[in-house]
Amino acid sequence: MKIDGIHHRTIHPGDDGISVVIIDQTRLPHRFETATLRTVEEAAHAIRVMQVRGAPLIGVTAAYGLALAMSRDASDASLAESVDFLAAQRPTAVNLRWALEEMRRALQPLPEGERASRAFAKAAEMADEDAETCRRIGGHGLKLIEEIAKTKPAGEPVNILTHCNAGWLACVDWGTATSPIYHAHDAGIPVHVWVDETRPRNQGAALTAFELGAHGVPHTIVVDNAGGHLMQHGKVDLCIVGTDRVAANGDVANKIGTYLKALAAHDTGVPFYVALPYSTIDWTLASGRDIPIEERGADEVLVMQGRLADGSVASVDIAASGSPAANPAFDVTPARLVTALITERGVAPASGEGLAALYPERRESAA
Amino acid sequence: MKIDGIHHRTIHPGDDGISVVIIDQTRLPHRFETATLRTVEEAAHAIRVMQVRGAPLIGVTAAYGLALAMSRDASDASLAESVDFLAAQRPTAVNLRWALEEMRRALQPLPEGERASRAFAKAAEMADEDAETCRRIGGHGLKLIEEIAKTKPAGEPVNILTHCNAGWLACVDWGTATSPIYHAHDAGIPVHVWVDETRPRNQGAALTAFELGAHGVPHTIVVDNAGGHLMQHGKVDLCIVGTDRVAANGDVANKIGTYLKALAAHDTGVPFYVALPYSTIDWTLASGRDIPIEERGADEVLVMQGRLADGSVASVDIAASGSPAANPAFDVTPARLVTALITERGVAPASGEGLAALYPERRESAA
Repeated sequence: MKIDGIHHRTIHPGDDGISVVIIDQTRLPHRFETATLRTVEEAAHAIRVMQVRGAPLIGVTAAYGLALAMSRDASDASLAESVDFLAAQRPTAVNLRWALEEMRRALQPLPEGERASRAFAKAAEMADEDAETCRRIGGHGLKLIEEIAKTKPAGEPVNILTHCNAGWLACVDWGTATSPIYHAHDAGIPVHVWVDETRPRNQGAALTAFELGAHGVPHTIVVDNAGGHLMQHGKVDLCIVGTDRVAANGDVANKIGTYLKALAAHDTGVPFYVALPYSTIDWTLASGRDIPIEERGADEVLVMQGRLADGSVASVDIAASGSPAANPAFDVTPARLVTALITERGVAPASGEGLAALYPERRESAA
Repeated sequence: MKIDGIHHRTIHPGDDGISVVIIDQTRLPHRFETATLRTVEEAAHAIRVMQVRGAPLIGVTAAYGLALAMSRDASDASLAESVDFLAAQRPTAVNLRWALEEMRRALQPLPEGERASRAFAKAAEMADEDAETCRRIGGHGLKLIEEIAKTKPAGEPVNILTHCNAGWLACVDWGTATSPIYHAHDAGIPVHVWVDETRPRNQGAALTAFELGAHGVPHTIVVDNAGGHLMQHGKVDLCIVGTDRVAANGDVANKIGTYLKALAAHDTGVPFYVALPYSTIDWTLASGRDIPIEERGADEVLVMQGRLADGSVASVDIAASGSPAANPAFDVTPARLVTALITERGVAPASGEGLAALYPERRESAA
């Protein structure tokens, strides 16, 4: 999508053909900076410290990371070790493991000498495919927004609440949850987005607000606590969020706090949609109870980054000193609270049947 | 309660007998500083900018503010104007209006020359009464914690989640939601408190964590998003929160986000208690829909205060620049989501009947 009118993607190969360039998302919204990854270790680091984040983007970054590994050592041992090394960086998003397995399948049969160039090409294909998948998600989600827009007085915006950043910054382009929003905005449908701040890493206030603002989409930041109140008062027409892993029964793991918004939507009759590419579905997990939940460091809760009056970026301790913090990064929203899933194939109920209807080949392969 | 072993109250008359001393809560947890109020304008300012906050404490501060007004001008006009002026500072908490009406009733019949001294004495009585009321709330809530403690393996703490600060810093002493916790801790029952950070003003991480830590109560700060996940995983035995206004049907207005925690507690079978003094009940409101919800400034969402590495306190802009923010300060939790109310008279269902059983004289006066 666009920043100051210029189209960007979150990740692309470097001009030298042997490096990978990312937007360093730990610097946003205070600085727009790119970082260059030259080794698999640098790619792993970028995933772990969340210079790149968002389930689709960490999958593509891992694919490029494997390409960087193959450039240095394309042996079978290196391939196996690098897959495991990259997969271990974040436990919850299934796209990471999925992308690495796709890469392994493509590279394993090849002679060592061909693996690096094929890996770069395959990673680029996966990036293009992610952008196209997100574009399709947007087309399907657009219809849901259009339906609501028809029920509104002329000129009154459709109010959409989103949590965390499932925007183009979480993907390669378009985003998952934001893709229907960008499609609606670009089609001239008035939309307004309630952006959950999304503590502790503030991906809403820092990333979603940044990318919506840069593309010109009207939005308002609210604290994570506010969404229920907004829904009680008719100020939210629908919720759309992303996900890091969907179990085979339609349970949805997403950024911590998603469950609370889904409860409020259910209690107030607001539709609650989850947008995702097929690579986010974990067909091996019967329910969300089995999804591993990453526990991250306490500093993400206790320390906040921001801009001082002189424009410099600083970290401040925000809590009572000496108080410990816990930081579970995701929660699981039961399928019963999800109105529907929006995927590149269409919209379906969050259930085993709903997923099977969209992906019949999976049912057949499992049978 | 205690800070470093020394007993404190949030408000007390100055040694000169014509001023009032408060703990400046906008400086916590980074600095423990007191402020001296010498005029009704300073008292109103302290309430508005939240140097004092919490429904019971703003009531007592308003009472002292009226005493300061009477010191300068004890006329009928001054009394009427000062009551209205102080009441206008915060719209949601009913204690503010309640305390001012109590004061007016005590002062109006007196000759002007007696009003100032009576006002100071009456404000001090109200402070003492608040401390005693909170102590009683703690005694009743203690029994609920004791019952849960009996079901736990020896030594395993009772895990209590609280939102915002309904601690002694929100009152004069003891707190409302924290009073049962302090009573349990002081009685040797192992307790552990999950402290919601409580955006946007972070009263949990800044105030509740501070006062629990200062008194020696084990606790862990979590972001507001985390409570639902903790409840899903059996890590919360009960929730206790305070309230700024309870309608006659048991609906509860409290810090924004309380509704979301009540939904999660209801969904996971965790008891959800609301602790309050009788002065927080608004018998004139049939339901929570009628409670006015204060909208505060966007800067509370967009700017964060904290300690820099050198120990100095600084404010940082934390969101994408140019993005607007909305800041509703309270939400209303429907009575159906509240397990019970804990008041100085005992524990009762959150309903018209429950309240009438605790306060039969109200039913009679309304009949």
